[in-house]
Amino acid sequence: MKTVAIVGVGLIGGSFGLALRRQGFEGEIIGVSSPPSISAGLSCGAITGSASLEEAAASADLIYLAQPVDRILRTIEQLSGILPPRVLVSDAGSTKETIVRKAAACLPSVDFLGGHPLAGKEQRGAQAAEANLFFGKPYVLTPVQPSSPAAADFRSWLTRIGVRIIEMSPEEHDATVAMTSHLPQLISTSLAVTLSREQNGRVSEIFGPGLTDMVRLAKSSSELWSPILRTNKPAVLTAIEAYSATLRDLQAALESDTLLEFFETGSVWARQVRGPTPGA
Amino acid sequence: MKTVAIVGVGLIGGSFGLALRRQGFEGEIIGVSSPPSISAGLSCGAITGSASLEEAAASADLIYLAQPVDRILRTIEQLSGILPPRVLVSDAGSTKETIVRKAAACLPSVDFLGGHPLAGKEQRGAQAAEANLFFGKPYVLTPVQPSSPAAADFRSWLTRIGVRIIEMSPEEHDATVAMTSHLPQLISTSLAVTLSREQNGRVSEIFGPGLTDMVRLAKSSSELWSPILRTNKPAVLTAIEAYSATLRDLQAALESDTLLEFFETGSVWARQVRGPTPGA
Repeated sequence: MKTVAIVGVGLIGGSFGLALRRQGFEGEIIGVSSPPSISAGLSCGAITGSASLEEAAASADLIYLAQPVDRILRTIEQLSGILPPRVLVSDAGSTKETIVRKAAACLPSVDFLGGHPLAGKEQRGAQAAEANLFFGKPYVLTPVQPSSPAAADFRSWLTRIGVRIIEMSPEEHDATVAMTSHLPQLISTSLAVTLSREQNGRVSEIFGPGLTDMVRLAKSSSELWSPILRTNKPAVLTAIEAYSATLRDLQAALESDTLLEFFETGSVWARQVRGPTPGA
Repeated sequence: MKTVAIVGVGLIGGSFGLALRRQGFEGEIIGVSSPPSISAGLSCGAITGSASLEEAAASADLIYLAQPVDRILRTIEQLSGILPPRVLVSDAGSTKETIVRKAAACLPSVDFLGGHPLAGKEQRGAQAAEANLFFGKPYVLTPVQPSSPAAADFRSWLTRIGVRIIEMSPEEHDATVAMTSHLPQLISTSLAVTLSREQNGRVSEIFGPGLTDMVRLAKSSSELWSPILRTNKPAVLTAIEAYSATLRDLQAALESDTLLEFFETGSVWARQVRGPTPGA
């Protein structure tokens, strides 16, 4: 792997570039992004130059798609027919089934490896990128083809960056993140929506740090989330259904004064979930 | 106000003692608590000595009840008939209607001022107490009697400590915190319970910082929360109902691909909620 093209130089793409550099990658890292993102990526050292998608496609060994899900789908279409042999394409999209299916349709003879780093933070953009953003975090890969030398090389860089590679099918990935990522987001957004509808004006005044924590995710960009949820609709609906069933159980527990067991179950599960590593 | 008795020297009681001291209170601060709590309160300087409830009741100008809601109710019963005139009793309980009603029944001729500082953090106990825990935070008072000189003196200390005093009726307080405090707690616990029921073992493995944030409150003590919810059941059930209705709207928005507006509403509300002050 000598030349890497990062398509979408934002928080994830920028952090990938910085992490490669920190681990001793000495090749070129070409950014394909909007002028402000290129400028942010160049100033933090995440990329070494910029190019159009066509130019990048012609010269890179790895094309790393770090855009929002809907833009990844469009980029895959744009790459159709213009990639030389032996290029590896990988992505960092938050859902996998639609993207992997699109790649199979548009790039049938291209080495495509779906991926999803479970990393992030509130800020966006390359200016928020960190070389250690992925360190210690799960990084899902959804290989559908036998591993190529290019894919093996990419995986060895991921290992050096310090991620925990976890292989699963695109379907299993999407069902899992519906529960662990999409549901928490929707719960937070729904809490903010519920409070926005309240006639009692005191709700914007009388609250503690618990509320601000629980609506933090609700501040997330709808442009980012709409395509994620659109490309994982059945699994997300299943997750909301499971959650609504839990709320009905909670109501019953509250009515019958048997809340202790309900709380205990939640508390045990929450305590076993390892918190994010410091700095994440 | 020359002698203060803090009943329950935990995070809230300890922080109240430290805050008084920081603001120049020079009187005695007597702790009424378990031996480990007294010892923690003495070593951090939140209290200057300890006594039984009866001894404290005989010598204090202010009795500050900083226990969990169910224990506050029990302490009010124990104080019945043993308080000299002109003592002020105030509390820091998370629900107000039951406590204020109990005080009216058990302490009919006593000056009782219900209160609730909207402050807290994950750790418990006097060892986690901070002089500035209440600083800049809302502090609800639910006066039901004309203000006495003792109550005016207590309020002036609260103002010096830097809280934002907000007066409301016990009923309005309980309806408001059902939405802004009890609902966020229950949403977090229900998320953890939902994930604990998942057959898909990957849910404990594939997640990002969003999930750990959203199940942080679920780690809270059920001993603390059961009495809070038990003493605010109708308002809490109303809050869960409102939230469940929002989830049904979310499902409809997801089915009809009209999520952008739903997200926008949540995002606008969440952004207008001021985050906790640093160090809180």
